[in-house]
Amino acid sequence: MSDWLDDTYGRPMTSPDATWFHENFQPTGSAIGFRVTAKLHEERSPFQTLEIWETTDWGKLMVIDGAIMLTSRDNFLYHEMMSHPVLFTHSNPKRVVIIGGGDCGTLREVLRHREVERVTQVDIDERVTRLAERYFPELCESNDDPRAELLFDDGVAYMANAEPDSIDVIIVDSTDPVGPAEGLFNGAFYASCLRALRTGGILVQQSESPLAQIDLIKAMRSEMRSAGFQVFRTLSFPQPCYPTGWWSCTMARKGGELDSFRERGAASKGFTTRYYSVDVHKAALALPPFVADALRE
Amino acid sequence: MSDWLDDTYGRPMTSPDATWFHENFQPTGSAIGFRVTAKLHEERSPFQTLEIWETTDWGKLMVIDGAIMLTSRDNFLYHEMMSHPVLFTHSNPKRVVIIGGGDCGTLREVLRHREVERVTQVDIDERVTRLAERYFPELCESNDDPRAELLFDDGVAYMANAEPDSIDVIIVDSTDPVGPAEGLFNGAFYASCLRALRTGGILVQQSESPLAQIDLIKAMRSEMRSAGFQVFRTLSFPQPCYPTGWWSCTMARKGGELDSFRERGAASKGFTTRYYSVDVHKAALALPPFVADALRE
Repeated sequence: MSDWLDDTYGRPMTSPDATWFHENFQPTGSAIGFRVTAKLHEERSPFQTLEIWETTDWGKLMVIDGAIMLTSRDNFLYHEMMSHPVLFTHSNPKRVVIIGGGDCGTLREVLRHREVERVTQVDIDERVTRLAERYFPELCESNDDPRAELLFDDGVAYMANAEPDSIDVIIVDSTDPVGPAEGLFNGAFYASCLRALRTGGILVQQSESPLAQIDLIKAMRSEMRSAGFQVFRTLSFPQPCYPTGWWSCTMARKGGELDSFRERGAASKGFTTRYYSVDVHKAALALPPFVADALRE
Repeated sequence: MSDWLDDTYGRPMTSPDATWFHENFQPTGSAIGFRVTAKLHEERSPFQTLEIWETTDWGKLMVIDGAIMLTSRDNFLYHEMMSHPVLFTHSNPKRVVIIGGGDCGTLREVLRHREVERVTQVDIDERVTRLAERYFPELCESNDDPRAELLFDDGVAYMANAEPDSIDVIIVDSTDPVGPAEGLFNGAFYASCLRALRTGGILVQQSESPLAQIDLIKAMRSEMRSAGFQVFRTLSFPQPCYPTGWWSCTMARKGGELDSFRERGAASKGFTTRYYSVDVHKAALALPPFVADALRE
């Protein structure tokens, strides 16, 4: 065997204590798992069960109600794609609200944009953020930015009470649409978002797997449309720790179009990204025919 | 709960016999799995152990030596991306050889190209093709095409003995670089391919996960370079049934460049694809910064 193959395929288990954590995801009939060596933490918060595991190859692993939320190694894909495409699509995003996002990874990416003047993160479960501070400190490194406000509150109520025409970008960075996040996937919530957005403002929401959950994306867009949004774009990107390893987010805009973005701004952005680039942004917008056909209205 | 959420998240297990098949992939420390209801077949061929499972949501599942090879539902992603980008990059592909590919899915896609005059598929294990004919008949529907030749032989020996300057496109559609496929990932094999290719001919090979196995892609390209290939392109695409759900193929050319492809030909190709399109081809070429940095020479 060549040395380079032996390095990869011949290597022994890195720990005699290693075992496997699997998320068997009933809605898609598919599973994702990681090799783990220890459960570092488990608690029942007022809202959900939180676990932190040590993995052999993926750093720390956070699990909420049995669902894998993030690993140290691959979360950059999701966090970059939930923030940079929408912020470079808006012409001048000053006021941003993140609903969910308690691990603070999306917040960190949003704060890289200098034109952003204020970001409010509204996660219902303070314990998610406290565990992120301890086990994913790199994601929380911007939490003390004077532009950042961390609230631990109900995102549905927050948006219902938000001042009309006050927000440029709303990022819904939530768990699956069951349990605490269920209220973030319906017309009443989207109507609140529409009212709170300024003209030209954009809502972006994580929208699950484009292969295995296309009906969910269609239903989300239908609910957004019935709430008054008129233009939509779904972007896709890899995310190994989520079901099928292929994920999406969906943008909806209050007035205006979603066909272009600030390419020059993105090309000269002045901060480093590992997944996002101008070309990757365009690639994420290039929906394969079977997805485009399913979403055609 | 909204009806559409209930349909997806509230649905019961589809069978009381359902359980989970997991592939725990040691090299990446990550796992992929599917909900299965029955093992339909198992045998030990002269080369490897072959299993066929019935899944609840993904059709049939083929497993070789414990590694998931394909499902009925998601194999179109891999088969389209192993064939159409390389064939639309070559100016006039008439003579094609597939090394591996015993399930015949790549062969079917190659035969959609009318300019292809002859395709030889060389898989070492005839039993893979016999099981594909039985459990994945849709992938074998072009096996009787008069342009197709199915050989069951050693791909390394086939390429070593191939007539020099005789082939336009070589597609290496193999299992992981261990066991029967190990000899398909080294300089001696690549030197055979280079000799057998006509000037302007292209080799494309599946090249594992760009996130978790970037060192393997680098090593492959290094072996290809030492064999005499000079230009390379790695394309990425989703593939839920393979480790991390994100996969790649790498092209190497005998003379000429790999910067462009026949966009007009691809746009008016005259056959239907579910994943591949001109925009998706460009998207697959848009390597994210962390991959491009790792592959920079």
